[in-house]
Amino acid sequence: MATYSPDHPAGSSPSKDNNFDVDYVIHYKLPSSSSPSSTESAEAEAAFSQLITVLSSAGFATEVRPGKTSSSLLVFVKLASPGLLQAQVYRSRVQDWLYGVRTAAPNPSNLPLAQYFESEPVTEAERLLLAYLLITKPKNENGAGVTPKVGTWKYVESIFPLHDRRFNRRWITEWSTKYFLDEEDLNKIKDKFGERVAFYFAFLQSYFAFLLFPAAFGASAWLILGGFSWFYAAVNCLWSVVFFEHWKMKEIDLAVQWGVRGVGKIQMPRPQFKFERESLDPVTGEIIKVYSPLKRLARQALQIPFAVACVLVLGSLIVSCFAIEIFINEVYIGLFKQYLTFLPTILLTIFMPTLTTLLTKLAEKLTDMENYETVDAHQDSFVQKIFVLNFITSYLGIFLTAFVYVPFGKILVPYLDVFSITAQKFTAEGKPLPTQVWQINPDRLKKQVIYFTVTAQIVNFATEVIVPYAKRKVFKTVEKVQYLSEKNEQTLLQDTADEATFLKRVRDEAELADYDVTIDYREMVIQFGYLSLFSVVWPLTACSFLVNNWVEARSDAMKIAANSKRPIPWRADSIGPWLNSLGFLSWLGSVTSSALVYLFNKNKSGPDGSPWDIPGWALLLSILFSEHLYLVVQFVVRGVIKKMDSPGLQKERAERFAMRKQLLERMVEQDVLSDEAGKGAPGLLGQGDKITREALEEEARSLSTVSPEQLFWQRQRGAAETIQIGRALIAEAAASHAKSRK
Amino acid sequence: MATYSPDHPAGSSPSKDNNFDVDYVIHYKLPSSSSPSSTESAEAEAAFSQLITVLSSAGFATEVRPGKTSSSLLVFVKLASPGLLQAQVYRSRVQDWLYGVRTAAPNPSNLPLAQYFESEPVTEAERLLLAYLLITKPKNENGAGVTPKVGTWKYVESIFPLHDRRFNRRWITEWSTKYFLDEEDLNKIKDKFGERVAFYFAFLQSYFAFLLFPAAFGASAWLILGGFSWFYAAVNCLWSVVFFEHWKMKEIDLAVQWGVRGVGKIQMPRPQFKFERESLDPVTGEIIKVYSPLKRLARQALQIPFAVACVLVLGSLIVSCFAIEIFINEVYIGLFKQYLTFLPTILLTIFMPTLTTLLTKLAEKLTDMENYETVDAHQDSFVQKIFVLNFITSYLGIFLTAFVYVPFGKILVPYLDVFSITAQKFTAEGKPLPTQVWQINPDRLKKQVIYFTVTAQIVNFATEVIVPYAKRKVFKTVEKVQYLSEKNEQTLLQDTADEATFLKRVRDEAELADYDVTIDYREMVIQFGYLSLFSVVWPLTACSFLVNNWVEARSDAMKIAANSKRPIPWRADSIGPWLNSLGFLSWLGSVTSSALVYLFNKNKSGPDGSPWDIPGWALLLSILFSEHLYLVVQFVVRGVIKKMDSPGLQKERAERFAMRKQLLERMVEQDVLSDEAGKGAPGLLGQGDKITREALEEEARSLSTVSPEQLFWQRQRGAAETIQIGRALIAEAAASHAKSRK
Repeated sequence: MATYSPDHPAGSSPSKDNNFDVDYVIHYKLPSSSSPSSTESAEAEAAFSQLITVLSSAGFATEVRPGKTSSSLLVFVKLASPGLLQAQVYRSRVQDWLYGVRTAAPNPSNLPLAQYFESEPVTEAERLLLAYLLITKPKNENGAGVTPKVGTWKYVESIFPLHDRRFNRRWITEWSTKYFLDEEDLNKIKDKFGERVAFYFAFLQSYFAFLLFPAAFGASAWLILGGFSWFYAAVNCLWSVVFFEHWKMKEIDLAVQWGVRGVGKIQMPRPQFKFERESLDPVTGEIIKVYSPLKRLARQALQIPFAVACVLVLGSLIVSCFAIEIFINEVYIGLFKQYLTFLPTILLTIFMPTLTTLLTKLAEKLTDMENYETVDAHQDSFVQKIFVLNFITSYLGIFLTAFVYVPFGKILVPYLDVFSITAQKFTAEGKPLPTQVWQINPDRLKKQVIYFTVTAQIVNFATEVIVPYAKRKVFKTVEKVQYLSEKNEQTLLQDTADEATFLKRVRDEAELADYDVTIDYREMVIQFGYLSLFSVVWPLTACSFLVNNWVEARSDAMKIAANSKRPIPWRADSIGPWLNSLGFLSWLGSVTSSALVYLFNKNKSGPDGSPWDIPGWALLLSILFSEHLYLVVQFVVRGVIKKMDSPGLQKERAERFAMRKQLLERMVEQDVLSDEAGKGAPGLLGQGDKITREALEEEARSLSTVSPEQLFWQRQRGAAETIQIGRALIAEAAASHAKSRK
Repeated sequence: MATYSPDHPAGSSPSKDNNFDVDYVIHYKLPSSSSPSSTESAEAEAAFSQLITVLSSAGFATEVRPGKTSSSLLVFVKLASPGLLQAQVYRSRVQDWLYGVRTAAPNPSNLPLAQYFESEPVTEAERLLLAYLLITKPKNENGAGVTPKVGTWKYVESIFPLHDRRFNRRWITEWSTKYFLDEEDLNKIKDKFGERVAFYFAFLQSYFAFLLFPAAFGASAWLILGGFSWFYAAVNCLWSVVFFEHWKMKEIDLAVQWGVRGVGKIQMPRPQFKFERESLDPVTGEIIKVYSPLKRLARQALQIPFAVACVLVLGSLIVSCFAIEIFINEVYIGLFKQYLTFLPTILLTIFMPTLTTLLTKLAEKLTDMENYETVDAHQDSFVQKIFVLNFITSYLGIFLTAFVYVPFGKILVPYLDVFSITAQKFTAEGKPLPTQVWQINPDRLKKQVIYFTVTAQIVNFATEVIVPYAKRKVFKTVEKVQYLSEKNEQTLLQDTADEATFLKRVRDEAELADYDVTIDYREMVIQFGYLSLFSVVWPLTACSFLVNNWVEARSDAMKIAANSKRPIPWRADSIGPWLNSLGFLSWLGSVTSSALVYLFNKNKSGPDGSPWDIPGWALLLSILFSEHLYLVVQFVVRGVIKKMDSPGLQKERAERFAMRKQLLERMVEQDVLSDEAGKGAPGLLGQGDKITREALEEEARSLSTVSPEQLFWQRQRGAAETIQIGRALIAEAAASHAKSRK
């Protein structure tokens, strides 16, 4: 249709990064290639026509291109007119103002819209979010009502914005060459990927900066004090309180600076919500969809059996592997010991992911059953369950070592003979297995903590970044081979030259996984837990985390830029439900730290590291004491931090002040005050409403109409007379006193 | 000046209750009658003139009359013009709106002010508060700047509004004939005495209603379970959590209904605040007065030695009296035992009030030193100290019995021989005092709890209501005699007939004490403490409190109506710092209850009631368990209560909704949306910003100016073409699949 000019003046970006103004790509999967019935194909066709129609009605321009294989289409959409975008932005900003997210109304001085948008420009994230909402909002709210994978739209596989390759490249390069991320970096993320993602990086950065202290202190404590020092435990708890309370403030501060404070109040309805009946809101008179809260409560109560199930299922797996491991490593000395050692690891590696996936699915089901009206409530409830799951998988092993294996090992280990007996039955000889006399392994706890805080972090990094990358590379090769062999090159050939690179890139992006910030938060929160709960065992923990988190921020950036679809730029004013998890871990840290110090401190325990002789009441007392000290310290720190000023709060204060001033000035202009209040205003000494002499004389003529009130207030005519009479009374009093003294 | 007509049509109230439209009375005390120097008298005279001048400038009408004795004056003031009042009310309502206290702006439809005030009338409390603020506000804010007893105004003894006798009579009569106070009753109090007082009665009423349950349950528990039942303890803790969380919601609800939610944000500057320097607020550019927060922090730190001092001073008094009492009652069997029994009570009665008064003064001094900017911060800090004081005086005795006397009595009582030895030195014979073998008195704890929850409440009632009443009666008689004997009847004679009754009443009111709601709150909070901390000892506690609180509400009403000056109708949106105290006591209850049950439950302790054989770790474990159970239950209850709807919240929601609707409608009117958004609005299927055929042809002529973006979006002309191409692709895919299946 047109020749392709690589250095076209209008297209400022080089062609290979050009996004062709596309706002969203809708990945439309046709019925599965193995056996599409003709009805299915017709259905897909009808739905496709409908899709384009509704998008067009909602104000989008559309283009369709073939997908990677012949069984998928790519629909490109962009907001058709700048006017529609402006109207959407303006409406959303007014809504923000009404919900108190913005202090000032948008466009207060009623500029022409074009001029207003110059003074408060639309960011990319804002545009993309509004476009996404316009695609997904129901039709009665002027949206297109497209919800991927649901109902009519079951063939809509995904709706995603396109990566800004140039930005991504610069982003990764910049971040990998600097130590600290500053506000500017976060602002860029916010404008590209929205506040939800920006909050994650802000949290990560804040946590990273805060880790410097425990890393330095931990290293010195490791050198000077060793493990299980009460001093390290106290400082560590104090640090976690300060960090937690500081973040709570920082979060508010950022939300204000980013103009999203209170954005959680603007709730997004969940399309999957099933209502029982519609009813009129008694207050607003609007039709609302109702689901019985009692029913929901009953379903929420299922969280308790869920938690119990998690503990039982994962717990029994961990306990068994733990027991087998101890038996093989510390009791058994027979044949194949060197191979059998790997048995528990193998069991864990096989069963743990399977069970976790199963339980996560169960958690999803449960959360769906709870049937929340809003996206946030749904997400909160799901995160809660995920936290329980991860708490068990991450910490139960260490808890077992610290609070069961060491103190009660002597009682429990003999029961491990059960393995010996079982094994005996399967061996021909029927002889007892060769065992050694068991002794508590005092280094076990430390080794375990080091494993979780160093090895596991590295493994995690690998599975998160390297594996998907490698996987993609391999799959790509395999696919290419398949693809070529299937001779489906036709679609490739259809691409016009100027679009070919772009379409290839879009097809690749469509295959990428969705980015889920929850997973990254989970990782960081669980990491914080190790620091808070167990770092007293091995004070170098924070050093390991410091290094890890520098890499983590970059690898997460990588993950977003290269391994995931570009995320929808959701807004957020907080790290959400993870805040509670952080608080819980910080508090639990005060309990476990004191218990660990009490149980394992070298000064008290015997030579074998067993804290057998410590009285129970003293342990409990130290836990009680430490926990309450923690609560008191938290109370104090919270008070102190609350009093501190921050740029965000200053900004808010300035805005509020400006608004108040402006409104009060306007009020004065309206002369409401000057007209009505003038009568009693300063200056008319003693006149007020007082009756003038003439009026008084007038009234004296018709005395019967004078009320006692009027009479009372007429005794002294004006302030001057009051002063005169008062002075007379004072003089009289002085005189009478003088007399009585004589 | 005028004849007096008792049935005057304008004065609707009978003359003896008539307040002559007076807003405030300023009690002006002249230099003390014993020795007023002439300079003092002159000073008083000058200050008086100034007083009348500033009041008049601020817009008040004034009248002066002699006081009760010749050494005091009564200055009557009222707002001179209704216009001034309306302007003040309007300004204050606008301020409320700006601070978010009101959802909607006042007078949104711009009615004439007179009409507006008909639709939203000014309550008596509102008028009186604004008048008071006008009297006390500094001159640069258009007030009169009169601060009683400070600086120039050292002769201003008090500024008080006059009681509405008719209302008070009806109030007392009504309340004494009904069991429950309803919303209407509280609204009346709110309109007369302001929200701060109304909140006290609302709290009292809510607490009273909530007491019905523990009273009924406690009575049955007392009959069936006896004391120290864990079941009672658990139910009691649950009840206190529910009550506390319910009140937190109720408080918000009431604040919204009364239109004062968030009123705490509008801070009243403290006139006594001393600033170190003035500086410019970096944000608002206003001049602000600064006091170093570090200095304040240092002074706040004095609270810790203060608390320690309280514990030491009051503690040692209580401990000594406790020891003496035990020695005399349970060990000593010698002469005068029946008289000596009273010794500790006498000691306590003499020293306790003295020490409490001293420490309260110290607390006041400390709070003054902390030098807060605002009235609320000052009050909060003072209440905190008062709570510490009262906690010790009220609960320490019981704590000693429960957790020292009973468990450690056998160790400690022998040390009481010190009394024996001391006494020996003073007796002539030098023989040891006759003693008996000591045994723990198991009923001691119960007796003590009954004393505090029944006897002390009655004594308190007496000191609070009957004593002041009697005192006033006696003083009045004495004064009258003195007065007549001094032949100062002159002032009496000066009163004109129609004012005589009124002036006599005002003179009496001027002598009354100020009403301090803090004292009443303290009493209720401490009472709640007994219930939460110790009622497991004697489950009938709540019954006693139920009766007591019915009387309490009426006697407090009596106290306000008859024994105090009418309070300034301050606003409030909460019971303030007492909320924290309640929460603390409720939490501590979970600890003490479990400890008491564990220590004293009959099943475990020996026949003498001594819990000697209970292992410490079990006690601590039960405390730990109970406390954490409490925290979990609190978390759940809080979640459930938060989800409940309430009239106040409904009102708020309705107001917000109305405001939003109105504003959005206005926005549509402004055509901002319709003008700009029309282009992309629904209906123009596939047209959007797409280039029309003509334009396309136009552009085809100058192909070099077409950007790749334009080219991309030109491939399919409109939605229809997109649909067509998409369908073709789908058909193709189906065909190719069909082929490959063959």
